[in-house]
Amino acid sequence: MSDHLNTDLREKLARSTAHITADDLSGVIAGVLAAPCADGGIGGPDAWMTMVSADPAPDLIQVLRDHFNKAEKEYSTGLETPCQSGTRLADLRAELARQALSGFIVPLADEHQGEYIPKRAQRLTWLTGFTGSAGIAVILRNTAAIFVDGRYILQAADQVDQSHFEIVPHAKNSPWQWVANNTDERDIVGYDPWLHTPDGVERLNTAIQESGGTLVSVTRNPIDQIWTNQPAHPLAPLQVMEQEFVGQSSIEKREKIAGMLSEVGHDAVVLTAPESIAWLINIRGGDVPYTPFCLAFGILYKDSRFELFTDKRKVPTNVANRLPEGVELLDRDSFDQRLDTLGKSAATVRLDPTSTAAAISSRLTSSGAVVQHGEDPCALPKACKNQTELDGIRAAHARDGLALTRFLAWLSRESTSGNVSEKSAADRLEAFRREGENIRGLSFPTISGTGPNGAIVHYRVTERTNRILAQDSLYLVDSGGQYLDGTTDVTRTIAIGTPTPEMTDRFTRVLKGHIALATAIFPPGTCGSQLDTLARTALWQVGLDYDHGTGHGVGHYLSVHEGPHRISKMPNRVALRPGMIISNEPGYYKTGAFGIRIENLVTVRKAALTADSNGDMLCFETLTLAPIDANLIAVDLLTNMERDWLNRYHAQVFEAHGAKLNDADREWLHSVTAPL
Amino acid sequence: MSDHLNTDLREKLARSTAHITADDLSGVIAGVLAAPCADGGIGGPDAWMTMVSADPAPDLIQVLRDHFNKAEKEYSTGLETPCQSGTRLADLRAELARQALSGFIVPLADEHQGEYIPKRAQRLTWLTGFTGSAGIAVILRNTAAIFVDGRYILQAADQVDQSHFEIVPHAKNSPWQWVANNTDERDIVGYDPWLHTPDGVERLNTAIQESGGTLVSVTRNPIDQIWTNQPAHPLAPLQVMEQEFVGQSSIEKREKIAGMLSEVGHDAVVLTAPESIAWLINIRGGDVPYTPFCLAFGILYKDSRFELFTDKRKVPTNVANRLPEGVELLDRDSFDQRLDTLGKSAATVRLDPTSTAAAISSRLTSSGAVVQHGEDPCALPKACKNQTELDGIRAAHARDGLALTRFLAWLSRESTSGNVSEKSAADRLEAFRREGENIRGLSFPTISGTGPNGAIVHYRVTERTNRILAQDSLYLVDSGGQYLDGTTDVTRTIAIGTPTPEMTDRFTRVLKGHIALATAIFPPGTCGSQLDTLARTALWQVGLDYDHGTGHGVGHYLSVHEGPHRISKMPNRVALRPGMIISNEPGYYKTGAFGIRIENLVTVRKAALTADSNGDMLCFETLTLAPIDANLIAVDLLTNMERDWLNRYHAQVFEAHGAKLNDADREWLHSVTAPL
Repeated sequence: MSDHLNTDLREKLARSTAHITADDLSGVIAGVLAAPCADGGIGGPDAWMTMVSADPAPDLIQVLRDHFNKAEKEYSTGLETPCQSGTRLADLRAELARQALSGFIVPLADEHQGEYIPKRAQRLTWLTGFTGSAGIAVILRNTAAIFVDGRYILQAADQVDQSHFEIVPHAKNSPWQWVANNTDERDIVGYDPWLHTPDGVERLNTAIQESGGTLVSVTRNPIDQIWTNQPAHPLAPLQVMEQEFVGQSSIEKREKIAGMLSEVGHDAVVLTAPESIAWLINIRGGDVPYTPFCLAFGILYKDSRFELFTDKRKVPTNVANRLPEGVELLDRDSFDQRLDTLGKSAATVRLDPTSTAAAISSRLTSSGAVVQHGEDPCALPKACKNQTELDGIRAAHARDGLALTRFLAWLSRESTSGNVSEKSAADRLEAFRREGENIRGLSFPTISGTGPNGAIVHYRVTERTNRILAQDSLYLVDSGGQYLDGTTDVTRTIAIGTPTPEMTDRFTRVLKGHIALATAIFPPGTCGSQLDTLARTALWQVGLDYDHGTGHGVGHYLSVHEGPHRISKMPNRVALRPGMIISNEPGYYKTGAFGIRIENLVTVRKAALTADSNGDMLCFETLTLAPIDANLIAVDLLTNMERDWLNRYHAQVFEAHGAKLNDADREWLHSVTAPL
Repeated sequence: MSDHLNTDLREKLARSTAHITADDLSGVIAGVLAAPCADGGIGGPDAWMTMVSADPAPDLIQVLRDHFNKAEKEYSTGLETPCQSGTRLADLRAELARQALSGFIVPLADEHQGEYIPKRAQRLTWLTGFTGSAGIAVILRNTAAIFVDGRYILQAADQVDQSHFEIVPHAKNSPWQWVANNTDERDIVGYDPWLHTPDGVERLNTAIQESGGTLVSVTRNPIDQIWTNQPAHPLAPLQVMEQEFVGQSSIEKREKIAGMLSEVGHDAVVLTAPESIAWLINIRGGDVPYTPFCLAFGILYKDSRFELFTDKRKVPTNVANRLPEGVELLDRDSFDQRLDTLGKSAATVRLDPTSTAAAISSRLTSSGAVVQHGEDPCALPKACKNQTELDGIRAAHARDGLALTRFLAWLSRESTSGNVSEKSAADRLEAFRREGENIRGLSFPTISGTGPNGAIVHYRVTERTNRILAQDSLYLVDSGGQYLDGTTDVTRTIAIGTPTPEMTDRFTRVLKGHIALATAIFPPGTCGSQLDTLARTALWQVGLDYDHGTGHGVGHYLSVHEGPHRISKMPNRVALRPGMIISNEPGYYKTGAFGIRIENLVTVRKAALTADSNGDMLCFETLTLAPIDANLIAVDLLTNMERDWLNRYHAQVFEAHGAKLNDADREWLHSVTAPL
């Protein structure tokens, strides 16, 4: 830090409402740089400053910005390309030797088993160069392999130095089997117990026992020992949610869950899933991209008390004061001690073996606690949104649908120019979204794919893959926003120019599937896997299908992928319940040619029926409000009922947005929502 | 045996081809009386005589009939009503005291865990008087309870003396929980290990451990000790199936299954499911009603040898000579020794823990074998019928459909008379069936229900419940036949007089569900539970549903209920494969008013598709050929596609049967199959 900046800062801080010293600022900035605020995170680039001062004056803001910009310019994490995987692998093997290990497992995971992980936890990327969203590496003395699923094989081949790592398709060989095949009874393979679940460790153990080798838990992650410029733990301000957004107080939620614990004789439950903690004590944060998570651990006791373990710098006093009653804020470092305390009192402690770190489970067990495996008790109540949440979600969808509608109107005018690219379109859509009230960012990286790129289900545009939206092609855009009052996720497929008969046939079949699900009525107790087929039959009839699920749960200003319910071919025994939010997204993909997906979010509610029904029935209410491209519909493939649904839906879309659009956009929307 | 008869018999036997002595005849007849030949079994009333002589001359037949009739007249089993449950319960408790037991579990099961059990195994009925098809009793020192499911509560109340037995609905309290609640650490509860599976014993054990009590396996079933006139083990002739019916030799089947055993390192598999043995070595029998089972145990070795353990009297030499090569016939009594031999050689032996008797599992384990639990390896190959079986099944369905069509024509003429009852209709239908080639009997007791009786899903007409088919009501008839070349199962619902609009609306919705399934096209890997919803959506749309599965597998001249596949709401992970037979039977039941079910059998086959399909798709081919009552169809509720399907189906039915009917029946069929 330069003296001048420093002096200026000291003065500004001293004269301001700031509650930290100048000396602590570098640490804060290191944490902020390790959090996603600056690159698409929640709350905008200056949001971090509340961790310095509750109400920074303009001149303090300027000084903090200067400091931040300077630090950012100098920031280097080792995650930049090209990856020095040769050197790093050699360093790692040297460290393994020091720890008397013959191998080490490197998963793409953090302590919370989340979908997005902070930079600090991107050890797999740092070591191998691979940037996909799923993968795992195994390093042994003389060999190393990275395991990726089908969608990432090409990307891995492009990013990973194959002179150091064998790239293994997950479908061909599992890391567990590979470990069994490549070790013998002399081998000791390490894993970081904070990055694996008890279920995961059990699987690893079973595998390595085949070869006679030994699996050991490490106390110091060998990569952390050699990754000199490893990013700090992320620091983003914790945010206390207002009752007007969440609708239910934390104490009410905690009393209900605590009651469930008492009933089955559990003294406490350890929560490590950030979405469960966020829901239970009505907080949000910004520690990972696209999802307003505050990374933390929590313990809920059967008397409804809750202990929140996180970096206290995320929670300045004025925020801490607003935490719900009965929630104690503790430093993350004291978490282990509290686990020991539970153990000493021989408490019965519940944890979810599919999402909790194995380190927690073994610490509890070894300190004397009785660990009971069970599902995360917040998962189901969190999934069933209350009336306030549903009102917010509907409002967020109105705003989000308006942004998407404006984008589609813009696209209809601009796409003929030959100047719109996948990237520029995604940027334009984000800009429209960011004009909406309560917007906090995107809910995931926009999938903006034209032609063959549209057929890549998890496509993410890069400089290299970026394509111009060409005439007579299909453009698929899957995107969503995080709003204080809700999370959105919507996909539209648009004909640029004139579609082929094949495109309209496929699009219409996908639409038929979408409508079949949207109009389904079903008895309580029905699970998503029972409804999945409705979305596929029109494609199946002509021998086609799509290779992904039909619907995922969605959080309320939380993760865009949320369990425990889903709609897919895989059996799922979680019944759909009123208030659940789920996507309705059948698709069709012709490799190398085009992709089609029509996605709306829906909520489950009671159906209004006149017949002498056997009991209450359930149905879906569609939340998303944006036109579906009628140019792609082969009307004669639709039944009257399906055509009626589309016309009613389009009338609703026009009703929602018409008055809020400028004349040109309104006229466009009027024409594209005209009854078929 | 009277002297005169005796002398006559001795002479006749001596002069005949008979291979047993007169002294052995009473034993044979006791076994025959304990088998269902005489009351709806397979092969007709004289079929048992082949166990006496390969080719009995008419005068021998007459003597045997006389002997049989005399024995039958004197036959008493204790299964007659009224049940002496008070005395028997007292006797049982005295026997329990002798065996130092404080309780005993009485399931409705035999050593083969079959759907139909022989008279000898009807211990629950003998003790309690209950004759339903599912139930279990628990007898303790001072209390006793019988557990039945929802459909049998009324029947149990009617049949069981409640001063001795508490009747507990299974849904309210399980026998396991009840045992846990009603025992303490001083209690020793016995079970017969031949009547429970290892999985079942484990559940019982877990339950009783809650109370601190002890569960013990008995060596002599206490009921068998006090049931003085307990029927013998059933004796019905074993039948060797001709290649022309089964299409695949036993050695071919055994080599395939043995190969599967070798692959996973199993030395042998113990088979106790009669359908698996029947399929594997191409035999049938007549030991239980409605199903051509020869009760037996079997061991298949990894070298394809097969040992068949059954009462050798079922297999006279001329039949034994025709058993497939590599099949050794052994007496049932030597089964235990062979298990010990497997143990002594420390063999790895597979058994299915959901269907094999626990006695077998523990005998193997205690004699030194390594027991590996796994599914019955015959289940899946047996379910996928070969071309010969499919040809036979189609031929059987043509004959069966003709019989049903003639019955429906008869019914259309007679039902207005007011003289047709549920019972007389069922008898008439059976008579038509018995005129068909290769008929061996019915495949289950005909469900013949009119008005409110039609709403009882598992209705079985009795003298007391028998109703006349009244005007303006619905008549439901669910029936099937056992033919040497196939097993059938079909349900039709008929309007007697004029149906109400509610009836036609409901019938049409059931039909829409039936057609949705009949016309489904789906990718390989699809399981029945994924298709179940298709059969329900038309009902769900108006708030209705039915409370049973949509489809069960069906054997080839074997059980009418056969796994491992099914179509139901319950998750099922067995993919539908070409050659599987399954029922398509949605329904609707309005309690106290009427019942509707439309059931055809279908087989899975590859779909012929023209589109550029993602790969092979599968579909159903409908096998059943009988008209569906068009008087019950609200045509305006059908889509064009659905109407086309019905018209095509009816054209097929007329094409199949028209030429084989008399003029009146043909004219009737022509009119009821006219296009809508």
